[in-house]
Amino acid sequence: HHINLLVRDLDSAVARYRSAFGIDDFECGELPLRGVRTARFRAGETWIVLVQPTDSAGVPARHLAEYGEGLFLLSFGVDSLAEACATVEAGGGALSSSPRTGLDSWQVVDLDPDYFAGAYLQLAEDDSG
Amino acid sequence: HHINLLVRDLDSAVARYRSAFGIDDFECGELPLRGVRTARFRAGETWIVLVQPTDSAGVPARHLAEYGEGLFLLSFGVDSLAEACATVEAGGGALSSSPRTGLDSWQVVDLDPDYFAGAYLQLAEDDSG
Repeated sequence: HHINLLVRDLDSAVARYRSAFGIDDFECGELPLRGVRTARFRAGETWIVLVQPTDSAGVPARHLAEYGEGLFLLSFGVDSLAEACATVEAGGGALSSSPRTGLDSWQVVDLDPDYFAGAYLQLAEDDSG
Repeated sequence: HHINLLVRDLDSAVARYRSAFGIDDFECGELPLRGVRTARFRAGETWIVLVQPTDSAGVPARHLAEYGEGLFLLSFGVDSLAEACATVEAGGGALSSSPRTGLDSWQVVDLDPDYFAGAYLQLAEDDSG
């Protein structure tokens, strides 16, 4: 469904992606509760989301401080978040967050990276149509 | 086109993804010149590739040693690798490799992470049909 890339300077990153890839239709957003500004574009079916932390205490800011810029999170689209979470848990996987609202009213749940070989994965239900 | 995730133990990671997500159709591969073993599955149009370094001197192994397990590389599918590279360079972006052959005869070129806000990006031409 979407891939998040952490950047220190959103405007600079947007300018570079626009120039190198010819992308003109960024959708800008912000999630104050998550402490980020975002700009996203589509690659096929997938949203590529550039994320600049704006709150140094938030999860994205702390990830940026620990790992640097670059790929952060991979979110799989599901039809039903509740059913997908139940499937993951029944299969031995662990969740690491409660359901929360992402960009554009996406409903998301984070998965436990300790179970998934260190990868920051997420499930997303997108009823935006 | 595809997303690479670095793992230390491919068999363990495959077992966990299979169990938690119910994925039964992994395609296994290896790229000796790159120094990796792989197992991949599709999420929609996108290949999710689990990558275990087998050569400690290779780029994937060095990335794993520096950053740990998790998301490594995002590869955008293009119709013509040569034309896409030319477009990126004309737009001010920089390449960081010559064309090389990936899994399943994909032709790939790495982009310079210093230009793209630290993200490891790639272009891939996939004529496998």
